[in-house]
Amino acid sequence: MRALDRDFTEETATDIVLGRNEACSLPRLTQIMAVLVPHLHAVVRELDLTSAEWMAAIAFLTATGQISSDRRQEFILLSDTLGVSMLVDAINNRKLDDVTPSTVLGPFHVDGAPEMDMGGTISLDGRGEPLLVEGRVLDERGVPIEGAVLDIWQTSEDGFYDTQDPSQPDMNLRGVFRTGADGHFWFRTIVPASYPIPNDGPVGKMLAALGRHPMRPAHIHFIVSAQGYDALTTHVFLAGDPYLSSDAVFGVKEALIRDVLTSTDAERAAARGMQAPFKYLDTDIRLQHEAATLSQGPQE
Amino acid sequence: MRALDRDFTEETATDIVLGRNEACSLPRLTQIMAVLVPHLHAVVRELDLTSAEWMAAIAFLTATGQISSDRRQEFILLSDTLGVSMLVDAINNRKLDDVTPSTVLGPFHVDGAPEMDMGGTISLDGRGEPLLVEGRVLDERGVPIEGAVLDIWQTSEDGFYDTQDPSQPDMNLRGVFRTGADGHFWFRTIVPASYPIPNDGPVGKMLAALGRHPMRPAHIHFIVSAQGYDALTTHVFLAGDPYLSSDAVFGVKEALIRDVLTSTDAERAAARGMQAPFKYLDTDIRLQHEAATLSQGPQE
Repeated sequence: MRALDRDFTEETATDIVLGRNEACSLPRLTQIMAVLVPHLHAVVRELDLTSAEWMAAIAFLTATGQISSDRRQEFILLSDTLGVSMLVDAINNRKLDDVTPSTVLGPFHVDGAPEMDMGGTISLDGRGEPLLVEGRVLDERGVPIEGAVLDIWQTSEDGFYDTQDPSQPDMNLRGVFRTGADGHFWFRTIVPASYPIPNDGPVGKMLAALGRHPMRPAHIHFIVSAQGYDALTTHVFLAGDPYLSSDAVFGVKEALIRDVLTSTDAERAAARGMQAPFKYLDTDIRLQHEAATLSQGPQE
Repeated sequence: MRALDRDFTEETATDIVLGRNEACSLPRLTQIMAVLVPHLHAVVRELDLTSAEWMAAIAFLTATGQISSDRRQEFILLSDTLGVSMLVDAINNRKLDDVTPSTVLGPFHVDGAPEMDMGGTISLDGRGEPLLVEGRVLDERGVPIEGAVLDIWQTSEDGFYDTQDPSQPDMNLRGVFRTGADGHFWFRTIVPASYPIPNDGPVGKMLAALGRHPMRPAHIHFIVSAQGYDALTTHVFLAGDPYLSSDAVFGVKEALIRDVLTSTDAERAAARGMQAPFKYLDTDIRLQHEAATLSQGPQE
């Protein structure tokens, strides 16, 4: 094997690198390299990559690392905008067909949002158009789940999370709710807005060069968990948003889009602490049992 | 096309991302994405990458960018240690069979090294074992090239370049020489040493996890250029070095290895400003005409 190492050519390159990694005692790392190196080399070969393009790639990756900080993760943004994050999400969340699909967590979740009584409002400053969100947490057969915990977060009407916007109170538009025996939940909020992902860095430049906008359609984030069920990280998207078919991070799934409707029902308004006419969004969420048989992914 | 965008699955992921990039008006960038995205997605799919592994990859790439600086380029090191740099070099330097092969430039070249008269010494501090380097610059048919410029650099006997080592004088072990009508060149230096690439960062950790050492075998760098010929960036490696078959950056080619011999020839010693017995290394360098027909690379 070693004789090869002194004859590095276009033809021998991949075998030589993989041969060198044979001393690795970590089976998973060996496997990762055995997949990564051939694909990396194939990219170079198929593109007939020039030295100048290689140098541009080095500079792009370096800038992507250097703009990242405690408050910003540009490599996650790169992964998001190339569809890698959603693909990892899909592979790690193979579900039964009748279960609510997952989508990306995103960078704006905060631990420790306030636990609220059912029906509470997560809008602490009252800014924006009031919205009632209501539904049930069910299992894969439609049986209500008691004690499911919903961790909710969303943007303001201006498209900013509280952590991005000093004008919002701390923990604005964040809340944690727990279902009763009927699996029912409801809370009050405001209509969220579409917004751009950070686009003043290398990923923003890449999107611009690709002729792509940086927008995400308006959505409400949910993490729903319950004893004995797979935790679900997902969004509910608002029907009619102009970016539903071109989410910059590919997070939209048809099954996660819900209409925002207007109700004139004075009785429901009174029961839910709203003023008629009011906007509402109904959505059930279906979890699957931990031990449930997974639907087959498109594996070989 | 757009309907797909709301149904991101393991199966549709790659088509959706490539469809989104169709608005790109830069043909080469479109081509790069059309190759890069499917390979990136294939890596994730073939490995059944876990969310934790994805996060570890994000952290690794971020750290690789953040340790880079004006004095250190960790992404180039990553490219080097995965064989990508040498593969790019091979693709961009397809040569006739009889021509001296290229190898990596490396990060230690400095513009503006002093031009010296033929026979000058590039060892400014006299530390190390004296070495005579001698040869001819020839074309692909063996015809001497007049006025070829050789830009030379190498490490000290301790394995450090002057730019890494405050104890060395500025421009130590660097020099530029120009051949006369016979294509002949000779200069005096000291025997260079093998050395580790920087291994206190993410790439060093990766090599350690892979069970690989960070060493490069001892070598002398050459950039040789002449009017009407393709410039050649290469090394001469010293036979007998223990790392010749395991260069951390895959730079060794059999045709670049030369013996360091000992001469007792008093006449040659006198003519070359050496003291017999002395060490010497003979190496011819063959350039190819710019218009020469290239040997076929292993395309397809």
